[in-house]
Amino acid sequence: LQEQPIQVREEVIGLLEDREQARFIIDLLPYDEDVAGGLMQKELVKANVNWTVNECIEEIRKQAEDVEKVYAVYVVDDNQTLLGLISLKNLVLARKNTKIGNIYDEDIHYVETYRPVEEVSEIMQRYDLEAIPVVNVQKRLLGRITIDDVLDVIIEKAEEDIQAISGITGEVEEDDNLWQQVKGRLPWLIVGVIGSLMAATVIRVFEGELSKIAALAMFIPIMGSTGGNVGIQTASLIVQALADKSGLEISWKERLLKIIVIASLNGLIIGLLAGLYVLVFSETQLVWVVSLSLMAVVLLASFMGTITPLILDRFGINPAVASGPFITTANDLVGIGTYFLIAHFLLKM
Amino acid sequence: LQEQPIQVREEVIGLLEDREQARFIIDLLPYDEDVAGGLMQKELVKANVNWTVNECIEEIRKQAEDVEKVYAVYVVDDNQTLLGLISLKNLVLARKNTKIGNIYDEDIHYVETYRPVEEVSEIMQRYDLEAIPVVNVQKRLLGRITIDDVLDVIIEKAEEDIQAISGITGEVEEDDNLWQQVKGRLPWLIVGVIGSLMAATVIRVFEGELSKIAALAMFIPIMGSTGGNVGIQTASLIVQALADKSGLEISWKERLLKIIVIASLNGLIIGLLAGLYVLVFSETQLVWVVSLSLMAVVLLASFMGTITPLILDRFGINPAVASGPFITTANDLVGIGTYFLIAHFLLKM
Repeated sequence: LQEQPIQVREEVIGLLEDREQARFIIDLLPYDEDVAGGLMQKELVKANVNWTVNECIEEIRKQAEDVEKVYAVYVVDDNQTLLGLISLKNLVLARKNTKIGNIYDEDIHYVETYRPVEEVSEIMQRYDLEAIPVVNVQKRLLGRITIDDVLDVIIEKAEEDIQAISGITGEVEEDDNLWQQVKGRLPWLIVGVIGSLMAATVIRVFEGELSKIAALAMFIPIMGSTGGNVGIQTASLIVQALADKSGLEISWKERLLKIIVIASLNGLIIGLLAGLYVLVFSETQLVWVVSLSLMAVVLLASFMGTITPLILDRFGINPAVASGPFITTANDLVGIGTYFLIAHFLLKM
Repeated sequence: LQEQPIQVREEVIGLLEDREQARFIIDLLPYDEDVAGGLMQKELVKANVNWTVNECIEEIRKQAEDVEKVYAVYVVDDNQTLLGLISLKNLVLARKNTKIGNIYDEDIHYVETYRPVEEVSEIMQRYDLEAIPVVNVQKRLLGRITIDDVLDVIIEKAEEDIQAISGITGEVEEDDNLWQQVKGRLPWLIVGVIGSLMAATVIRVFEGELSKIAALAMFIPIMGSTGGNVGIQTASLIVQALADKSGLEISWKERLLKIIVIASLNGLIIGLLAGLYVLVFSETQLVWVVSLSLMAVVLLASFMGTITPLILDRFGINPAVASGPFITTANDLVGIGTYFLIAHFLLKM
């Protein structure tokens, strides 16, 4: 959504006849924080392709105060179009009167202003770059992004994900004041309470069954918690795959099949374990109810853990939210409903 | 624990008379992966303090093939002791016959081989360093750590934390084979099942109460899930504070007081909400049981969410594990036990 407007905007500006005027407008346009244009610094050292190494060094001297860290000098033509770069190492080693045009590196990585920050960070990580030049759609050099800025973004993202998984909203820190802490925790707690009260309503529907076989109540917790645990596990692997862009290459059919097989295996083992407990410590008539319900719950929770982050991601919501209380609550409800339905039919009550 | 041996080891080696022999031993000693010595690259460009800029540039030329990225030249004395550095920018700007000793920067950051990687990463982030020199206890230059290596460590750590929170063991990726995926999920699922079966046993103890008031079963889910949600929220903030080393400066008494106040506020709101539901949809005699139990559960879960990561951290276990299924399971059990105990005494059954 956000890529289009910036791209179009710059193409329109590129059509303006008056170059000075166009550049003035560009300078005034604010970029969103989450695209390359919003993260870049305008301070950098650039050199014209026709300069000599000596002229280039003089330029560094001029810029030395503005540009704290110089990793490379970007090489541009008369229109400020990015042609390549020359690393400081090579500049040190070059003869003073060599033409920049003869020694610069043409094969470099750069990003357009409208690229999402995640993409920039991925490119810089993949190619171990300490800085990357930022250009507009006409490939004109506008700025550069350094690794320390990207690092901050990555760390912030990781903290946000962990907070989302933990059901904390906003940027709560352990040393925030009381009200901020309460405010950050309450929303998801209330969602959880509402979900649990819906579960209470489901149980109420089956009160007749419960009053006949009180032991049914014993296995309410295992349905809720197993559903929650399986859901979180599945969702967090999907979230990770979404972030890596890896693993998402396999087809939908393949993915679903794989998830069903994994869930069936886990469900079988858990179902057997719980069935054994029922056999020894509870009423034998419940063995099949508990075992089958658990298998169904594991399957359903895996399915929900898979689709929830994908749906959230599609709607532009951080999919990590899906690994949090949302999925626990939903699976509590689904798990308990499944359990009582299976009990109802198997026990023919 | 690990700092001591390396430190002692190097001090002992430092005492060896035969310098060549000592260096030979040092080269053979392996460093753990999680300390600076294990992460550093030995390839770097260094210059003797007595050299001229020109000699320094010749050294870069010699090393150019071995050292891919040169950010700075490290300045050492005849004993290879780190004195400071000269940035490539300043080297480019300096006159060829200037003595290095006159222009190098003495006020630099460096780390000892035995420093934990987290500490190195923190220093590099705080001071926006793209590389940091690594020295032994005699301050002799041994290598350098570059930001891309640290970045990998940070990202890996974040992924590990998220997997720990999600109850996945080992390094599971979404495109791993089936058996690895099952193996990564089963351990915590089984812990969850065992916890839930213990909860089942608790409920079994109160079967008499349940058969008298079947509606008691309705609020089993809310006790478990609220305890779990509160526990995860609290634990994840403690884990974050542990990682930042911030927020941990406040005293134990202060921290506990704060947590009690936050928990009381959240517990009050949740208790009221659930009490209202009971009043409208269930038996009025349960209003106080449910409300009071929920408040107690929120308090207990906050307390457990606080101490569990601190205890794990003390024993060298990744405290993020505490934000995962471990705390959900424990709080399920505690929550349900508390609920039935309060029901037992309030309803005088």
